[in-house]
Amino acid sequence: MLGKLKELFSPQELLKGNFGIERESLRVNDKGELSLISHPSVFGDKIENGYITTDFAEGQIEVITPPFKNIEETYNFTNALYDIVAMEIGDEYLWPQSMPGIVPDDDKIRIAEYGENNKGKQARLYRQSLIEKYGGKKQLICGIHYNFSFSDDMITKLFNNKKHIHFLGDSGCSNQDVDYKEFKNKIYLRVTRNYLRYRWLLIYLLGASGVVDKSYIKTCVNSSKEIAQDSFSNEGALSYRNSECGYKNKIDLFPNYNSVDEYINSLKGFINDKLIDSYKELYSCVRLKPKNVDKFFDSLKNDGIQYLEYRSIDINPFEKGGISLNDLYFLQLFNLFLLINDESDYAKWQEEGNENQNIISKFGQKELMLKKDGQLITKEAFGLEILNKIKCINEELNLDKEEIINNMIEKIKDHKLTYAYKIEEKVKEEGYIRAHINIAKVYKKSSYSNRFKLEGYEDLELSTQILLKESIKRGITVEVLDRVENFISLTRNNKVEYIKQATKTSKDNYVTVLIMENKSVTKKVLADNNINVPKGIESNSINEAKNVIKNFIGVPIVIKPKSTNFGLGISIFKEGADSESIEKALEIAFNHDNTILIEEFIKGKEYRFLVIDDEVVGILHRVPANVKGDGVRSITELVEIKNQDPLRGYHYVTPLEKIILDENAKLFLKQQNKDFNYIPQKDEVIYLRENSNISTGGDSIDYTDDIPDKFKKIAVEAARAVNARICGVDMMLEDYCNENSNYAIIELNFNPAIHIHCYPYKGVERNIGVEVLKVLELI
Amino acid sequence: MLGKLKELFSPQELLKGNFGIERESLRVNDKGELSLISHPSVFGDKIENGYITTDFAEGQIEVITPPFKNIEETYNFTNALYDIVAMEIGDEYLWPQSMPGIVPDDDKIRIAEYGENNKGKQARLYRQSLIEKYGGKKQLICGIHYNFSFSDDMITKLFNNKKHIHFLGDSGCSNQDVDYKEFKNKIYLRVTRNYLRYRWLLIYLLGASGVVDKSYIKTCVNSSKEIAQDSFSNEGALSYRNSECGYKNKIDLFPNYNSVDEYINSLKGFINDKLIDSYKELYSCVRLKPKNVDKFFDSLKNDGIQYLEYRSIDINPFEKGGISLNDLYFLQLFNLFLLINDESDYAKWQEEGNENQNIISKFGQKELMLKKDGQLITKEAFGLEILNKIKCINEELNLDKEEIINNMIEKIKDHKLTYAYKIEEKVKEEGYIRAHINIAKVYKKSSYSNRFKLEGYEDLELSTQILLKESIKRGITVEVLDRVENFISLTRNNKVEYIKQATKTSKDNYVTVLIMENKSVTKKVLADNNINVPKGIESNSINEAKNVIKNFIGVPIVIKPKSTNFGLGISIFKEGADSESIEKALEIAFNHDNTILIEEFIKGKEYRFLVIDDEVVGILHRVPANVKGDGVRSITELVEIKNQDPLRGYHYVTPLEKIILDENAKLFLKQQNKDFNYIPQKDEVIYLRENSNISTGGDSIDYTDDIPDKFKKIAVEAARAVNARICGVDMMLEDYCNENSNYAIIELNFNPAIHIHCYPYKGVERNIGVEVLKVLELI
Repeated sequence: MLGKLKELFSPQELLKGNFGIERESLRVNDKGELSLISHPSVFGDKIENGYITTDFAEGQIEVITPPFKNIEETYNFTNALYDIVAMEIGDEYLWPQSMPGIVPDDDKIRIAEYGENNKGKQARLYRQSLIEKYGGKKQLICGIHYNFSFSDDMITKLFNNKKHIHFLGDSGCSNQDVDYKEFKNKIYLRVTRNYLRYRWLLIYLLGASGVVDKSYIKTCVNSSKEIAQDSFSNEGALSYRNSECGYKNKIDLFPNYNSVDEYINSLKGFINDKLIDSYKELYSCVRLKPKNVDKFFDSLKNDGIQYLEYRSIDINPFEKGGISLNDLYFLQLFNLFLLINDESDYAKWQEEGNENQNIISKFGQKELMLKKDGQLITKEAFGLEILNKIKCINEELNLDKEEIINNMIEKIKDHKLTYAYKIEEKVKEEGYIRAHINIAKVYKKSSYSNRFKLEGYEDLELSTQILLKESIKRGITVEVLDRVENFISLTRNNKVEYIKQATKTSKDNYVTVLIMENKSVTKKVLADNNINVPKGIESNSINEAKNVIKNFIGVPIVIKPKSTNFGLGISIFKEGADSESIEKALEIAFNHDNTILIEEFIKGKEYRFLVIDDEVVGILHRVPANVKGDGVRSITELVEIKNQDPLRGYHYVTPLEKIILDENAKLFLKQQNKDFNYIPQKDEVIYLRENSNISTGGDSIDYTDDIPDKFKKIAVEAARAVNARICGVDMMLEDYCNENSNYAIIELNFNPAIHIHCYPYKGVERNIGVEVLKVLELI
Repeated sequence: MLGKLKELFSPQELLKGNFGIERESLRVNDKGELSLISHPSVFGDKIENGYITTDFAEGQIEVITPPFKNIEETYNFTNALYDIVAMEIGDEYLWPQSMPGIVPDDDKIRIAEYGENNKGKQARLYRQSLIEKYGGKKQLICGIHYNFSFSDDMITKLFNNKKHIHFLGDSGCSNQDVDYKEFKNKIYLRVTRNYLRYRWLLIYLLGASGVVDKSYIKTCVNSSKEIAQDSFSNEGALSYRNSECGYKNKIDLFPNYNSVDEYINSLKGFINDKLIDSYKELYSCVRLKPKNVDKFFDSLKNDGIQYLEYRSIDINPFEKGGISLNDLYFLQLFNLFLLINDESDYAKWQEEGNENQNIISKFGQKELMLKKDGQLITKEAFGLEILNKIKCINEELNLDKEEIINNMIEKIKDHKLTYAYKIEEKVKEEGYIRAHINIAKVYKKSSYSNRFKLEGYEDLELSTQILLKESIKRGITVEVLDRVENFISLTRNNKVEYIKQATKTSKDNYVTVLIMENKSVTKKVLADNNINVPKGIESNSINEAKNVIKNFIGVPIVIKPKSTNFGLGISIFKEGADSESIEKALEIAFNHDNTILIEEFIKGKEYRFLVIDDEVVGILHRVPANVKGDGVRSITELVEIKNQDPLRGYHYVTPLEKIILDENAKLFLKQQNKDFNYIPQKDEVIYLRENSNISTGGDSIDYTDDIPDKFKKIAVEAARAVNARICGVDMMLEDYCNENSNYAIIELNFNPAIHIHCYPYKGVERNIGVEVLKVLELI
């Protein structure tokens, strides 16, 4: 099959598929104790929210990525979900380990609550039965569930070449009469069987739960040794979660994986025999998944296997999201290996697989013997056999993952490279609880530093990242339709809203936007509504404009091209000018546009009022790059400190830009007889340039609560005049404290950035994403 | 004052003001008989429609321009209103003459009807009283009313320099205590008095009603001579309308023009003395107009004189709109003369003005004596005195109108240059009725040729001109906010709608437009709604794209940049291509955009479905430039004939472009072994180029009634999928006659041109402007 794959597919096609991750984690306090507090209400209905829900316990959060075509997206989204959750759980932490922290006795565990409707009651009853059957502590074990399918294109192409594809017991010819669904089932059944055969290797490579807390199940604790305070393990332990102490059925169950029909029948047999209550209770390390999970058996039978769920993967404590990108890459190779590798006809393969798992889970760090088709083989030899095959697949198909495989080869040779070993060492130093809490604190801090962005979506504008984040948090289904254009869709209850650049929505009408886009029409409409705008004239001809110069001599004016770009072509005469200067300014302006404006110059400072649905939700003022002295440090040192703020970065991927001490700043300081070594006095503010653009290190300052209502009302009226629901109103105010101060609206913006209000340099962070969701009627 | 004007103002400022025209005309049949048919219902409520209404009789249309700042706009709008009206009166004509055509006896005249409400009844009663007092025939006389005011800026600047402005009996110093309103009143009163003194000259220069029909008032006919069949005049007659046979009060009335208060008092005196019923009945040749005409006296007193109305101007039969642009320019100079010229203190100036008017109206073409301040003076000497003063004003103030004044000087010297003489000559040849009907036919034909455009607005896109025209027709107030951007507002009953480019309205939401703007998002949304779109992939990297080339070898495909501009960078492989050709095409596409599309090639022809509010209101198909043979003419000759269609022009000012026989056409014909001299057989169609663009002389053909409903429904669904109310759907159809034919939607357009459907080369002209007005809820 390898040769056929090579012939049919490019490496990119082979690495595509559909990849989703579910990750559970316990909410704990800073002592590592399981939280008894309610699931945060911001995440909404646990049943409706497809991204963030609970598992068994109220304090057991489960995050779920949608299926992505590229594994990188899946990885990033897992981290993004972590960031979102971590910021909403107050002073709690997300326990970064499969085995729980400090857990109470069963009667104290707060089972997840799903409300009082039928579905909610059922969910509760089901959990109640589990606690009785398996005990609550086991239910608190967390893990990674890895969902995957090959791409449809890949399976279709294989199907079209089915006569060349051999399965166990089949010749290619026998595939001739197989239909697409059956063919697909055969593929996934083969992968499943091989997964069961070789899963021990995954547990070895990814296992990370070799220690338990004293509060864990007595029998498990008692059979282990205390390696640090209240921290118990046995020599060589690798994954308690995958061991007998983990989450298992009462007795080993071996479903039939020969065909979907036989699989279904064997499961129904278990249920009839009262071994399990439903298919859900089969704690197999891999599950066949249908299209429609709600009609599990019917859908599996009629639609075939849609995807597989691998359930053997421990939380990786060294990864915020719980699994590393390289491990995910390795899984892609592993999947291809499972697809390609021929199957043996050894009858007791399922029992052997279980046995190998148990040995590896409990003693995997030691040198030990496993079994292969009934024959003993060392862990290392068996592992190397598989890994070398994978290496060969990688080479043959040009998948470019050699380094990852080599690292795995090193790991099979040296148990000190396992996650289990590394976490054990940390536990020995800090204790089980402290070690994990310390890790959780680092992750939570990183989530805070990331609060303005959405991991994996950093190529999008910050405003769009914020809106996506607020949506995901609430279980609103997000999709990015066009990354370059920041075009997304948000869906809730079958209601789809398309949004471009966070504020371009279906809720504003088109001509409203066109009015705002056109400065002179905007001014006309505002003036018609008795709102102050800079008075002035528009001219299409330099001769016409020159004719009226005498009306403007000595008057404070601004002369500018009608369509200004970054301030080019603008002349400002704060104190008025003579005829020649005005003429010159007209010529400059006409060099930039066929139409120019001569406007009165308005004194004061500029404030951005963000108006959403007749309410001012944020007011921002920008000041040029500056530092404030402490009487000790030089300008260079003060800038360095100010630049450490995670809100500051380079090239607009953060809400603020780092201050750069360039030639401009040098010149600007020189005019004040200062240089970069100057030590400002305590509280002395030194400005480093004239312009207040954020792009050159300027500060944004929130004034939402400081500006009098009168001006807010004017901003709202301006937005209303053009019928805008989302509108950035740029207002000049001579003295913002004084209600009677002169004002003028100089521009309306139809695509106001929201991130500047969400994450200002100084002042309250405003949650504008939520305001946009309200406009969209999605919350 | 002349010196002060020169000092304060540029020529442009002096020529600005507010200028409006009212023009009456009788609807007549092709025999010249007054129409008894109802006013066209498309013009709506006569009281509400501010542009098109009736005057005295139901068959007497009055068109009214809004006030414009430039006289050119006023002129153009007058013509535009003519065009609009002429196209809505069936097989009737607009009588191009102040004196009526064939009029019935009073009891047969259909008085204008205004409905049965109070206002309507009053209007009717008023007209009833007029017919009784003055007779119906006089009420049918039509004319031009010229409304004007100086610009506010001009009056303000004069006011600010009031100590240098001298009025009759005043020194500049006496102005010191005058307020703005009083100052403005003084200006207009002085102009009014001078108008009354010098109006005889205007009547001479613009008079054009020197003949009457036999059916006119007996006493007038009887005192005249038959100069052609049923056509009566007296020797030297110039303006029956301004003569004793015209529309006058029973006795001469002389209001007091010294001040507004005295004016009001004198009018009230006339009313008290039962000489007139209301101020409206004072048939003065000039009227002082207040801000609020409904509260005439109060507003005149409180707000002062707002503008003046000159009422001496005859319809100019040689102008479609009834007045020439040069005559309007002359009026601007005349107004300045009236403002500047010092007044004499001759007491009987009003009587003298009347007397001069009567003499000029009745005998103006002859050499005769007038009176000036009680002294006899020849018409020519008096006229030259005035015109030379005007010439001096023109020179001093650089108004650049010397030629116009010189023409007037020629006219005062030679009566054969008067309109009256010229129309009289025509009447002598053709008879009064025929002469005017022949003129009316020419104008109506010109209105038809203009049907796709709005005179004075040719710089706007045709779609916008069409929308403006449909609005004006219905009395919806139009304003052009930004000519370059085709940004207009339409107002009805205080409801304002802003529109850009005819189809960008408040009724479509912003994100709908953004979806349509983005081809891949559009495709995604359509596909999600189960609407056929060309299948394909999008790629951001040439390497990624090259990786999938093998999937497309031999398949009919189109490779194109994501944002196509005029077809640049597109490769079409109708029969599929090999690997190298595809690679090459990818490179070409990537040269035009960072993102490219590989799409299946859809067979068939492209149709533009215009969907408005869930209905297909037009379907258009375009074919390349072509001619159809008659077996006689060469290609060159056939093109020449085809190009005569007024719908064809150059540079997109017409719905279609003229065919140009250029090198491309030559080459294209050469491939068919033909040249421009080839004579196609009867009905042989010769295509002159490959592309079907209208811009290269292509034909547009309406298919609205030919395409099966199934495809219309699909187009509607496509528009609905993106929630568009106005949407151009481009659909490929393999065979439009066959409902089962394959189709695919290749693009949605958010700014579909409407003019192509309104004025196709072949097929029904669709009134899309009305559809847009419906969407806007303005009708």
